[in-house]
Amino acid sequence: MSTYGFIEYEKASPEVRAVYDDIMATRKVDKVNNFWKAMAHDPVRLKRTWEDTKQIMSEGSLSALVKELIYVAVSVSNQCNYCIAAHTASARKKGMTEEQFNEMLAVVGLANENNRLVAGHQVEIDEQFKAVG
Amino acid sequence: MSTYGFIEYEKASPEVRAVYDDIMATRKVDKVNNFWKAMAHDPVRLKRTWEDTKQIMSEGSLSALVKELIYVAVSVSNQCNYCIAAHTASARKKGMTEEQFNEMLAVVGLANENNRLVAGHQVEIDEQFKAVG
Amino acid sequence: MSTYGFIEYEKASPEVRAVYDDIMATRKVDKVNNFWKAMAHDPVRLKRTWEDTKQIMSEGSLSALVKELIYVAVSVSNQCNYCIAAHTASARKKGMTEEQFNEMLAVVGLANENNRLVAGHQVEIDEQFKAVG
Amino acid sequence: MSTYGFIEYEKASPEVRAVYDDIMATRKVDKVNNFWKAMAHDPVRLKRTWEDTKQIMSEGSLSALVKELIYVAVSVSNQCNYCIAAHTASARKKGMTEEQFNEMLAVVGLANENNRLVAGHQVEIDEQFKAVG
Amino acid sequence: MSTYGFIEYEKASPEVRAVYDDIMATRKVDKVNNFWKAMAHDPVRLKRTWEDTKQIMSEGSLSALVKELIYVAVSVSNQCNYCIAAHTASARKKGMTEEQFNEMLAVVGLANENNRLVAGHQVEIDEQFKAVG
Amino acid sequence: MSTYGFIEYEKASPEVRAVYDDIMATRKVDKVNNFWKAMAHDPVRLKRTWEDTKQIMSEGSLSALVKELIYVAVSVSNQCNYCIAAHTASARKKGMTEEQFNEMLAVVGLANENNRLVAGHQVEIDEQFKAVG
Repeated sequence: MSTYGFIEYEKASPEVRAVYDDIMATRKVDKVNNFWKAMAHDPVRLKRTWEDTKQIMSEGSLSALVKELIYVAVSVSNQCNYCIAAHTASARKKGMTEEQFNEMLAVVGLANENNRLVAGHQVEIDEQFKAVG
Repeated sequence: MSTYGFIEYEKASPEVRAVYDDIMATRKVDKVNNFWKAMAHDPVRLKRTWEDTKQIMSEGSLSALVKELIYVAVSVSNQCNYCIAAHTASARKKGMTEEQFNEMLAVVGLANENNRLVAGHQVEIDEQFKAVG
Repeated sequence: MSTYGFIEYEKASPEVRAVYDDIMATRKVDKVNNFWKAMAHDPVRLKRTWEDTKQIMSEGSLSALVKELIYVAVSVSNQCNYCIAAHTASARKKGMTEEQFNEMLAVVGLANENNRLVAGHQVEIDEQFKAVG
Repeated sequence: MSTYGFIEYEKASPEVRAVYDDIMATRKVDKVNNFWKAMAHDPVRLKRTWEDTKQIMSEGSLSALVKELIYVAVSVSNQCNYCIAAHTASARKKGMTEEQFNEMLAVVGLANENNRLVAGHQVEIDEQFKAVG
Repeated sequence: MSTYGFIEYEKASPEVRAVYDDIMATRKVDKVNNFWKAMAHDPVRLKRTWEDTKQIMSEGSLSALVKELIYVAVSVSNQCNYCIAAHTASARKKGMTEEQFNEMLAVVGLANENNRLVAGHQVEIDEQFKAVG
Repeated sequence: MSTYGFIEYEKASPEVRAVYDDIMATRKVDKVNNFWKAMAHDPVRLKRTWEDTKQIMSEGSLSALVKELIYVAVSVSNQCNYCIAAHTASARKKGMTEEQFNEMLAVVGLANENNRLVAGHQVEIDEQFKAVG
């Protein structure tokens, strides 16, 4: 389910199909996730969101797996259940072990805790950490 | 500055000093950050927070650098300025390049954006992503 | 379902019924949403929450539709599924088109992304944007 | 500083002064905080916000001190520096000890951590915790 | 359900069982919640999370009930459904009345509202509230 | 200040200058904000972020002013001070009155409050609001 429903491949316009085709080719899968089928209600946004995602999540100076771990970490921090489920699956596909998942999650928990301890004490930034650029 | 001020090494109790000493030895630095000096008002918490942090952030199946990147990613997502400043410095010290910083940040931005596109459309989790454990 | 259940009209006290009646008259509907039936466990809060809501969401220098769009935008940003569902329905009733929904959501996504790019870079506020009042 | 500046008592309209007077009388102080002076740009909102605040924060089945602790806890979780500073001061005035502050903050940190561990593992709600009302 | 499933007592290793036993003894219950059964995939984390939780949530200068209220308040603010359900149950067991629940929730709502009014107006911290420690 | 400093026009590469030029031409201003000067450390991201921003924030089925109001609303909800300052200025330039600002902010406060009242009571979505698409 989704607010305005999903656009299935069969009913999609040529421009939406072109994006779906690129998603399936890039990810080597034979169907697109619900997320993209909801995005497709606005073809310009679909294309923009997909191209941004493809560009940002691809192998770079950080590996595609590390990027997935960061994506899951942020989604966990924001409590986005869909994103946690989809990107945990995606990270596993890229080779994430259960041990790596648990270590990532421990860091997410710790950062969320320490972020608040800092805020509660109104801790001033140490001179040596101040941005000087 | 900080709500209840900082506990400097010179005025610290032996149990607080023991933690400060371990922080400095572990991190190979000659002073502790403001965060720890604020935490020290409650020596039990200081010890617990430090030991959790040391354990969680150490080299594991994820490298210490990847853990710092995840820590920064969460702190950015939560808008904790102190934590961003301190852990960006820490990540640099562990070898983070500017390119890696930028790639990490791009993922954080993207995840924050897509988390909301998902929520706005109330996208249902795809069958294949559902936790079955 | 709800933690303490719902107070249905038939079982409501006269003061709760008075609020329910005002909600139905104001909104031209013949039943109240689950939200109000959960709020009714504390009649003082029910009345305060309703009167604040009625006052804040009414036509003003911003139209009632623009206010609904802002309400949905915040609820999406906070990942409140109930609020997204209820206020998307409400916005549609006030005339929101699917195109407007998509444009609103694109702004929510962008703001969430850019908020983090700013935080990650610790960008200082430009002189000309500083509050001077 | 503040976006539209502050409305000082001397320049305030009679309806704004009436609220300021009630704030000072209720809190037994001789000036109002910056928050109220920023709110005063919209006298209807000033009155509504103050009356809601007075009603909600007053002694009830929870003491006024416990309410302040909860207020600080939420503000810390949301990283609102102004609110942390103002309500920590307010809690101290109502008798909060440093030990109580530290215990409150430890709970805030723990809840923020555990909230994410739960989300990351997508833990299903135990049958006995499900709302049945 | 949960990403990696649950570790039931019967299948747990001795070190996991030791933690489960301590949870059941401390809380005087005869089974552990899903949260702990998900945590158990990483026995070191299970032990650390439980010991932190036991230490932080125990009776102190704040009562165990007040701590539960703060825990629920933060979980509500973060929209963690599991945590709200589990800790509301826990607070009730420790004696929370429905009236106390409603008062806590009203404070959470108010703080979330006022936190944003402050941010929107970019209100500067009053001199007397500035941390001077 | 900013983590890696700012890229000024004079020192920018041709591709960065091309984006700066487009920003200034589009917005009819003679310099670019700090945000863009921090983004410019990664020219690909600079171009992507600017093009997304230009596309999303332009006049559409929602006016450019309504889009700015939604942008500010989200930034307030996320406590991003830079974004609040920059986009409040931008909204004013597009004609936002102080009254509209105050009404927008009141909705942001209310939504943040009600989002938590809903979460606290674990209110189930009404049948008629469920996404059926």
